[in-house]
Amino acid sequence: MRLVILGSTGSIGRQTLDVVRDTLASRQMHITVLALTAHSNIDLLQKQIEEFHPASVCVTDEEQAEILKKRDPPCEVLSGETGIIQVAGLAEADTLLSAIVGIAGLKPAVAFIKSKKSKKSEKSNKSEKSGKTLALANKETLVTAGALVTRLAEERNVKVLPVDSEHSAIFQCLDGINSPRRIYLTASGGPFLTWSKDQIKHATLEAALKHPNWNMGKKITIDSATMMNKGLEIIEAMWLFGLKTDKIKVLIHPQSVIHSMVEYDDGAIIAQLGTPDMRLPIQYALTYPKRIFTPYERLDFMKYKSLSFEEPDYDKFPALRLALKAAEVGGLLPAVMNGANEEAVKAFINKEIPFTQIAGLIEHVMRSYYLIRAEMGGEKFDYTIDDVLQADAWARKEVMKF
Amino acid sequence: MRLVILGSTGSIGRQTLDVVRDTLASRQMHITVLALTAHSNIDLLQKQIEEFHPASVCVTDEEQAEILKKRDPPCEVLSGETGIIQVAGLAEADTLLSAIVGIAGLKPAVAFIKSKKSKKSEKSNKSEKSGKTLALANKETLVTAGALVTRLAEERNVKVLPVDSEHSAIFQCLDGINSPRRIYLTASGGPFLTWSKDQIKHATLEAALKHPNWNMGKKITIDSATMMNKGLEIIEAMWLFGLKTDKIKVLIHPQSVIHSMVEYDDGAIIAQLGTPDMRLPIQYALTYPKRIFTPYERLDFMKYKSLSFEEPDYDKFPALRLALKAAEVGGLLPAVMNGANEEAVKAFINKEIPFTQIAGLIEHVMRSYYLIRAEMGGEKFDYTIDDVLQADAWARKEVMKF
Repeated sequence: MRLVILGSTGSIGRQTLDVVRDTLASRQMHITVLALTAHSNIDLLQKQIEEFHPASVCVTDEEQAEILKKRDPPCEVLSGETGIIQVAGLAEADTLLSAIVGIAGLKPAVAFIKSKKSKKSEKSNKSEKSGKTLALANKETLVTAGALVTRLAEERNVKVLPVDSEHSAIFQCLDGINSPRRIYLTASGGPFLTWSKDQIKHATLEAALKHPNWNMGKKITIDSATMMNKGLEIIEAMWLFGLKTDKIKVLIHPQSVIHSMVEYDDGAIIAQLGTPDMRLPIQYALTYPKRIFTPYERLDFMKYKSLSFEEPDYDKFPALRLALKAAEVGGLLPAVMNGANEEAVKAFINKEIPFTQIAGLIEHVMRSYYLIRAEMGGEKFDYTIDDVLQADAWARKEVMKF
Repeated sequence: MRLVILGSTGSIGRQTLDVVRDTLASRQMHITVLALTAHSNIDLLQKQIEEFHPASVCVTDEEQAEILKKRDPPCEVLSGETGIIQVAGLAEADTLLSAIVGIAGLKPAVAFIKSKKSKKSEKSNKSEKSGKTLALANKETLVTAGALVTRLAEERNVKVLPVDSEHSAIFQCLDGINSPRRIYLTASGGPFLTWSKDQIKHATLEAALKHPNWNMGKKITIDSATMMNKGLEIIEAMWLFGLKTDKIKVLIHPQSVIHSMVEYDDGAIIAQLGTPDMRLPIQYALTYPKRIFTPYERLDFMKYKSLSFEEPDYDKFPALRLALKAAEVGGLLPAVMNGANEEAVKAFINKEIPFTQIAGLIEHVMRSYYLIRAEMGGEKFDYTIDDVLQADAWARKEVMKF
């Protein structure tokens, strides 16, 4: 399998290369790393080049790309957004694992979906009907442009597989014959689950960055604290599994042992459980439909003597309510919400706004957008990538005004 | 689908007819009840005849069969063991649901597997490769003669589907591509889970019959109290899923919400959850691979705020240890153990022996059998049905000696 990883120096990117290393070592499957991309961490990227020998790499930051080029690594060095799109569109690639953070993942994902198949892959895939595989750790691809991306993927016969632990769990619980009656998207509840509304008002950055179960990047950790992460996951699940919001139920499950569940018409509920280890859903996206042996720690039920459940508190976590609204309305509202969230989280990480202001700003931007849209005759559902990017840029500017 | 139900007046039999009634009412699937059998409850059987119009019924008790015949019901009335075997072997049947209790289920199951296909079913099943379906609520068919029954079923292209909630759960968690690395057979732990060894010594029949979660027949309820039920399930699982005992782990889960689980090579665990309602696994065995809507109560996680797990206590529940031993040795030892258990449970229900004597008697019989076998040159693995029935009869006599 020929793999391209976008965002290889980030948390998911590094863990993907861990999986590739372990898979190669166990000789259970052959994976060729065709290309890697990074934002600016060229020191780690250089180590990855030495170990995995990609033919191309791309560094988004032009300055860092120049420095890397001067070090003369044994591969092509591209730079900027055009470089990422070039790498994402490589005909030889079978699988693109997109672990870029934010809306920056949208254009490369579309480039991959539209890329040609190499003759090699056409040949090797004769027996299967499927073409290429887009393994999505980047939520924003579907959150901001789900209608467009899923339609394109279907047209081009590209499988879109989830890398998120919750969506991978749901994907693993589907049986291919029966439609889900409902899905349970489990949520740890984040670091503020047991905090009062008043305590949350005074939450510091340090407190927000302490996730109880998962060790992740900064942006997604703050999204977990506001529960916007679960909101984004609702929208992602809608597109991945073709479900309306009324069929998606968020369930607080603080131990993060049950990664999500599917309820069927007969009342049976199928759940996927595991350790909180992102290498599992990453590997499943690469080996699907097969599973291969992993040397990682296994779930020990004696360590988790009790699994508990709660209803989410929409009052304490207004971001979740806002995301549900965006999911219900659809069109460009999720892109607006996502853009506002990205800027607001950035401002919180830079200690420019307090924690509760994140949801406050998003709500303000969504309301402004709603008024403008109403004047323009309502929501736009047959949007283009440019519409999405414009909506995103507009939302960010609205946040910046504050 | 043309269905024969063995044991239609028992707990599983009645619930199977509930499922048939609801399925017919919802028009999601057509089920014709071809034949019903009962041990002696002819009043209920008569009501079932009026509602479901079977062409034949069989009453094992000859006296009751005569009484029913005199009432002149609108169907053929057979009697005795030969009648059950005749009904089980009907060529027109697509599915046999065997809800007989005990080893009495073995011969009819074999008769069904060996029965001819009707021309009608051959025609309608052209598109599918599978022939008939044996839906097993009777554990003893596989416990006492698993090697023989599974081999026969494979030769005759008969699907053997589980009706037990645990085995149905495992069956629902298998993906058809990846072999399980291990299965977790969950157990409520029965009414004596929190009792001390000394308290269990003085357990009364009334206490043993109070199962915390499931409402079942007497025999299986006592088996749950001794945990022999879980032991029988281990042996059943070995044959249903082709697993050795080292791949089957019993996990105490007092809430009975997770009905069982499958762990795969990659560490992912797939679980099936539901209310403790036998109609679900019964229905799945009838509609598989489809699931159809049920009007029954659905699992509400807010009712089960906490799910817990414990290791089983083999010291407090020696029957579980004995069953594991029988499972490991194989051959006719499981049949001997099962026969001894049936007699010992009967004696306990008749208040002839105390509760702890059940496991004591089984162990004694297993030891005696082991000595005799050793003299005869070791365990017999290529056994016949007659060998199984002889081993069973011998074990019962050994119990009666006491």
